[in-house]
Amino acid sequence: MEVEIATIGGYEEVGRQMTAVRAGDDIVIFDMGLNLSKVLIHDNVETERMHSLDLIDMGAIPDDRVMSELEGDVKAIVPTHGHLDHIGAISKLAHRYDAPVVATPYTIELVKQEIKGEEKFGVQNDLVKMEAGGTMSIGDKNELEFVNVTHSVIDAINPVLHTPEGSVVYGLDKRMDHTPVLGDPIDMKRFREIGREGEGVLCYIEDCTNAGRKGRTPSESVARRHLKDVMTSIEDYDGGIVATTFSSHIARVKSLVEFADEIGRQPVLLGRSMEKYSGTAERLDFVDFPDDLGMYGHRKSVDRTFKRIMNDGKENFLPIVTGHQGEPRAMLTRMGRGETPYELEDGDKVLFSARVIPEPSNEGQRYQSEQLLKMQGARLYDDIHVSGHLREEGHYQMLQALQPQNVIPGHQSMSGFAPYVSLAESQGYKLGRDLHATSNGNRITLVE
Amino acid sequence: MEVEIATIGGYEEVGRQMTAVRAGDDIVIFDMGLNLSKVLIHDNVETERMHSLDLIDMGAIPDDRVMSELEGDVKAIVPTHGHLDHIGAISKLAHRYDAPVVATPYTIELVKQEIKGEEKFGVQNDLVKMEAGGTMSIGDKNELEFVNVTHSVIDAINPVLHTPEGSVVYGLDKRMDHTPVLGDPIDMKRFREIGREGEGVLCYIEDCTNAGRKGRTPSESVARRHLKDVMTSIEDYDGGIVATTFSSHIARVKSLVEFADEIGRQPVLLGRSMEKYSGTAERLDFVDFPDDLGMYGHRKSVDRTFKRIMNDGKENFLPIVTGHQGEPRAMLTRMGRGETPYELEDGDKVLFSARVIPEPSNEGQRYQSEQLLKMQGARLYDDIHVSGHLREEGHYQMLQALQPQNVIPGHQSMSGFAPYVSLAESQGYKLGRDLHATSNGNRITLVE
Amino acid sequence: MEVEIATIGGYEEVGRQMTAVRAGDDIVIFDMGLNLSKVLIHDNVETERMHSLDLIDMGAIPDDRVMSELEGDVKAIVPTHGHLDHIGAISKLAHRYDAPVVATPYTIELVKQEIKGEEKFGVQNDLVKMEAGGTMSIGDKNELEFVNVTHSVIDAINPVLHTPEGSVVYGLDKRMDHTPVLGDPIDMKRFREIGREGEGVLCYIEDCTNAGRKGRTPSESVARRHLKDVMTSIEDYDGGIVATTFSSHIARVKSLVEFADEIGRQPVLLGRSMEKYSGTAERLDFVDFPDDLGMYGHRKSVDRTFKRIMNDGKENFLPIVTGHQGEPRAMLTRMGRGETPYELEDGDKVLFSARVIPEPSNEGQRYQSEQLLKMQGARLYDDIHVSGHLREEGHYQMLQALQPQNVIPGHQSMSGFAPYVSLAESQGYKLGRDLHATSNGNRITLVE
Amino acid sequence: MEVEIATIGGYEEVGRQMTAVRAGDDIVIFDMGLNLSKVLIHDNVETERMHSLDLIDMGAIPDDRVMSELEGDVKAIVPTHGHLDHIGAISKLAHRYDAPVVATPYTIELVKQEIKGEEKFGVQNDLVKMEAGGTMSIGDKNELEFVNVTHSVIDAINPVLHTPEGSVVYGLDKRMDHTPVLGDPIDMKRFREIGREGEGVLCYIEDCTNAGRKGRTPSESVARRHLKDVMTSIEDYDGGIVATTFSSHIARVKSLVEFADEIGRQPVLLGRSMEKYSGTAERLDFVDFPDDLGMYGHRKSVDRTFKRIMNDGKENFLPIVTGHQGEPRAMLTRMGRGETPYELEDGDKVLFSARVIPEPSNEGQRYQSEQLLKMQGARLYDDIHVSGHLREEGHYQMLQALQPQNVIPGHQSMSGFAPYVSLAESQGYKLGRDLHATSNGNRITLVE
Repeated sequence: MEVEIATIGGYEEVGRQMTAVRAGDDIVIFDMGLNLSKVLIHDNVETERMHSLDLIDMGAIPDDRVMSELEGDVKAIVPTHGHLDHIGAISKLAHRYDAPVVATPYTIELVKQEIKGEEKFGVQNDLVKMEAGGTMSIGDKNELEFVNVTHSVIDAINPVLHTPEGSVVYGLDKRMDHTPVLGDPIDMKRFREIGREGEGVLCYIEDCTNAGRKGRTPSESVARRHLKDVMTSIEDYDGGIVATTFSSHIARVKSLVEFADEIGRQPVLLGRSMEKYSGTAERLDFVDFPDDLGMYGHRKSVDRTFKRIMNDGKENFLPIVTGHQGEPRAMLTRMGRGETPYELEDGDKVLFSARVIPEPSNEGQRYQSEQLLKMQGARLYDDIHVSGHLREEGHYQMLQALQPQNVIPGHQSMSGFAPYVSLAESQGYKLGRDLHATSNGNRITLVE
Repeated sequence: MEVEIATIGGYEEVGRQMTAVRAGDDIVIFDMGLNLSKVLIHDNVETERMHSLDLIDMGAIPDDRVMSELEGDVKAIVPTHGHLDHIGAISKLAHRYDAPVVATPYTIELVKQEIKGEEKFGVQNDLVKMEAGGTMSIGDKNELEFVNVTHSVIDAINPVLHTPEGSVVYGLDKRMDHTPVLGDPIDMKRFREIGREGEGVLCYIEDCTNAGRKGRTPSESVARRHLKDVMTSIEDYDGGIVATTFSSHIARVKSLVEFADEIGRQPVLLGRSMEKYSGTAERLDFVDFPDDLGMYGHRKSVDRTFKRIMNDGKENFLPIVTGHQGEPRAMLTRMGRGETPYELEDGDKVLFSARVIPEPSNEGQRYQSEQLLKMQGARLYDDIHVSGHLREEGHYQMLQALQPQNVIPGHQSMSGFAPYVSLAESQGYKLGRDLHATSNGNRITLVE
Repeated sequence: MEVEIATIGGYEEVGRQMTAVRAGDDIVIFDMGLNLSKVLIHDNVETERMHSLDLIDMGAIPDDRVMSELEGDVKAIVPTHGHLDHIGAISKLAHRYDAPVVATPYTIELVKQEIKGEEKFGVQNDLVKMEAGGTMSIGDKNELEFVNVTHSVIDAINPVLHTPEGSVVYGLDKRMDHTPVLGDPIDMKRFREIGREGEGVLCYIEDCTNAGRKGRTPSESVARRHLKDVMTSIEDYDGGIVATTFSSHIARVKSLVEFADEIGRQPVLLGRSMEKYSGTAERLDFVDFPDDLGMYGHRKSVDRTFKRIMNDGKENFLPIVTGHQGEPRAMLTRMGRGETPYELEDGDKVLFSARVIPEPSNEGQRYQSEQLLKMQGARLYDDIHVSGHLREEGHYQMLQALQPQNVIPGHQSMSGFAPYVSLAESQGYKLGRDLHATSNGNRITLVE
Repeated sequence: MEVEIATIGGYEEVGRQMTAVRAGDDIVIFDMGLNLSKVLIHDNVETERMHSLDLIDMGAIPDDRVMSELEGDVKAIVPTHGHLDHIGAISKLAHRYDAPVVATPYTIELVKQEIKGEEKFGVQNDLVKMEAGGTMSIGDKNELEFVNVTHSVIDAINPVLHTPEGSVVYGLDKRMDHTPVLGDPIDMKRFREIGREGEGVLCYIEDCTNAGRKGRTPSESVARRHLKDVMTSIEDYDGGIVATTFSSHIARVKSLVEFADEIGRQPVLLGRSMEKYSGTAERLDFVDFPDDLGMYGHRKSVDRTFKRIMNDGKENFLPIVTGHQGEPRAMLTRMGRGETPYELEDGDKVLFSARVIPEPSNEGQRYQSEQLLKMQGARLYDDIHVSGHLREEGHYQMLQALQPQNVIPGHQSMSGFAPYVSLAESQGYKLGRDLHATSNGNRITLVE
């Protein structure tokens, strides 16, 4: 059976991930993501109303023209988890394919909300839930399996397409976490089995985000311990404490909520995306928040909550808000600008349970946001965080577990692939032979 | 009563700390340290045989000439903890003063060993042990007190000289740790009392090492959690694992030893300084190591141990060695050069439970050491560490606890003082009035 | 005679420079500057309509309250050159003082335009022109002198207040340039004379911007040679070439204009501030531009010019525009966004004859601007520039020339002063004795 | 005719360059270089006495085993210029091939000296001189041509192998310099012709050293102008001035020598490699030094010269020495350690007409060397330099001139190739199709 991979998006950048695997006549698409930074660099762009072609021209969504060269039928569109760079283009591209979107329950729920917000296209694809560990036939001869992984969002998986020629493992976006605070540990046992059963692994597509970083990405439980250390150290403070983190990072939100309780403060989630991700996670029973945890997304209810906090005393609350990257319109930035009823005072604490994504625009915005907060007297705690992506040792362990015949570095540009290429070559792979450093819009034939 | 401070060493650099406080006719000296980097930049220098004046000229030990201008008698020499930059010049300078060395038991033991190694001078000063919490009269009117603090070595204190004009708190080298793994938490309660009793705090001398870093220095227990994550993640590895850390960092050594046991490996401490610090700590009952923990300092016994490890199987041991800064003659560097019987193989793990001290010479040496290790196939885990020095929030909290009338930034050069000066000015201090940014060899009159 | 210095603004930051010298009953104010970044961090602020007190609160203009403590009369307000951080607060603060503004002709002209744009206050102070080399009596006993210096704007001077107790030399903002392309070389001969005549130099206030940089700031003629190399290398390019530089940097603009002619392109200055600074310089005969050099400031005439360029062929023109820091509303950024009639095409060249001011907000904006330009196919040449501020060797030479009794580091925060403090201490000065590291709002008494 | 390229060394690092081109039965080898850092990381290694295999194992010289897979005869070994990373392995590898070494006269002379110093192997290959512009038959059907280029050593060329299938242009190590101070400008006219004649360019191998740097590498004449600015600014200094640069950089040495004369100092070249490169250049009439220019290589004559300088007065001389990278045994480092008769005094100037090669070991050594010099009072001027390698714009221009059918990035590791890959893809090349990012030991078939 012919097997080929089309590397459609996310092979020259982070963002707008999209990869297709064709096995015989069946095609599965992994991820359809959005590169938000390509949108935000322009003023006043509303993606909801934009046409796919314009977004492709901007480099915001994957340029899927290469799909027309693949001879087969798309049987499934499989986003691996709920981050925008993996699901954000579904509402713009999925309607072109007569195939269901297959994902884990939490991811499906987020896809549903994306589609609902879309104003240009009517996306009618079936939305099919499959849990980690589940399998599904793809045509007569292939099978799709979800292997549980740990990442900075819950319910993340690595999809595996089992073909008669061996498995194709799509390995984007994971950390090797054995104590992940929320959800199950990464299922290394299953990866090792896949590496040894049948024809073994024909191809492994790997996430190179942290490929140049030594050692191991720490477990979420390390971030949790760090966070606990920070929060208990300010237990006695009788003024305002505010925290910010990735709104989709439910495990972290959970830790913030629990430690808020421990230090005698009522946690409140504020901001549209805070409400969306945590609300969804709670509704689907992924997390068990205290009954009285408030979540407010709409501007009015946020303002009302801030007023209540100011009335009842800031010392009784922990607002958990958006804005860790200094995004100009996010809640924390607005608090820094004094645009909300919450008044920061000298000595108040702001906890960044996140890391600045290292890119000059982000760094500039975050710096400005920090300046504004400091001008109001706020004290900042930063980098209370661990990454969601494998470092060097994780890559070694995955290669050892899967023993893939071919490897394709992804989720980066060439300079991000470079350290992974060295690493893979040290394990016996050879560039151009079984190690494929590629770019967007390419096809790699694995079995002719 | 006249009170003045002589800032003798460590106010233009890190290293060779020395400060004298004169209260009336009584003088107390805090620290007599060595700046090792000023020695190592020269080839073939053996400090043991060198004269003080030459070492002063090199900038290696404090230039204590200003002492002759202080009208009073030295009553005590008080090193705050056992690091070389605080005790390393005692063997070269203490004999000039007719006064005992007063320190905590562990520190005294290390001072004793320093003096024993000295070949040029006969140091005869009394060595007096005083525990954290203890007090001692200094002349008729002053009293010396030790307040327990947490640092990257055990049995560290901040000495306080209580004078009729208020207290002088010598605040170098601490982290605010409430869960320090080994020893008691920092005694913030006592600091708060000192800030409020009697005449309050006349002067606070602060360690500015991390003054420009946001937030809070994490607790040692965060490093421990991180270390545990790393070590359990390689539990199943059946080759060599080697760890390196600061040999004086007993809490960290303890964690390494315990996690070694947890993952089924026998820990062994190797290297002269490893044996010295841990052996001393165990002998003085500061730590309770497993009975079978081997410690070997002499070259021959180290080599014998390495041979035994190679014979019995590397997979059964965790050698804990010196060399985290890539020092050319340290154990780990020699292992990288293949100069020991321990043979590194492809895939073996080396854990740096330390951070590179950010200075180009160190970085260059560490880089070379890492290259050598990698050339033998080793995989490196770095930065499994937390600092022993306060960051911004610790500084704020100390100022709030002590409410000192005067503040002197120390343990840095002017560029290291700079962020602390901003911080103190934000709390109402004013440069040149009650905030004294000074340099080596100066006298600051507090009460005329 | 009593002499004291009030360090009013620019001693905790770059921007909002202001220093007063009182000699007996006479006071001279050096500089009244604006810190533009403190304005721009807020949305929608129009300084023209704002009250001084609000601008002081924002940290945008000097907090001159300390002036009320100086017992004497302000006799002159002396901006040293036409940059905003030296003249930008005159329109907000000068009316409080019954004294003329005294400056070189080009600077006076720029001050005049600032005052004209002011909408809140009526500034009526006399504007007095004095050339480099000129002198003026200040009261009975003091004299003001202008010494010619070289900086990144023309007609810059260092003012000297000669008092019976010695001279006070206000040394901000200069490079030691012996071949400055435009204008006279720095008058080191006069500085050496001042250092030796009468009572010598009582006090020198020094610009620490580059104090931590080794060696010598290169001459403007080095930048010119570099620029020539770049421009002749693209002589044969038949598409668009655009250049950007500091609009007030007339020497650089002159080089751009001349090399444009050399490579057969007609130079055009575009943007309000381009027109203002170069137009003023030409009107005052500081520079002799070709007759046909167009300068267009108003949006409409700029757009008309761009259309003409597109019609006649981009290959015939060199637009010289604003936007080297990526300022969101500057001409080059708008060109990047496609908001002007000038159409960038693949291969077009953009020359940044400037350096990014190293601050995260700038770096973020500049990065975004570069991204936008690149998205249109532009090729970027950056860092064709030399600084206008002394490095280490210039500082040594100034100290040697002036041999001042006291030194005050300025034009920076404490961390910027730090390397200068080391440098001055290496020359025998002592912090707290004759070397005064100070902050905003302080008074330093030199003669009691 | 079959044409293939073997990328033997320098495709995973800088250093040990070696590439072979097979056209039909004829093979030409371009470069045989040494990676000196792989030698220096080990203690006490003397390459002169080492066997090739050990040096290959160390990664110091190219692993040429792939040569045995190429079916054809080596007809020439062609080093492009005299730097060690291009000629340093000839004495270890050339004797394996029955072929002459063909190079420009200056390069041949340096190769001759390398071979003379070799103690392990007897290298008997013919040494054939061919000037830039010259051609030579390679077998019946191919022709070798040398195109003049500009680099940081004189007499550098880019060799071109003209085959019936098109030309193979080996483009390593050049800057696009139209005013190179010494020698002819780069021969872009010939490159453009080669791009258009016959079958055009089949393959271009490009030097990616600076591929990620914006704009254009400045001409040597810009460095010369900078150097002049520095040297004339210290014309009046009456103490010691010392300069250091790359000893093989004859154009720079020439500028130093000339400006020394201009400021009234006698230049003297000191150090073995200074004497070797400049002496050779003068002997071959590449440069015309003043008659009285002293060059001393042997330790004794260097010491004698230093003594004479100290006797006659340091103010009359400009020693030009080795040691710009802080190499521990180089002249300048020894001067810093006080190991030479030349005594540095407070205020003496040291000019680094070079840039630190950005790698932690170098940076550490250079830092140490600078510390030692500063401890003796020296003042440092650094970065008076321009690179010898193309930046982005040079790469664009070469692609435009040659219009190659295939491109191979070289002279870097994968992360160094990465920005070049982006650049080439922006010009229509496609990775894996006509853009070949490869590693050491690979073969790339161009014509089957």
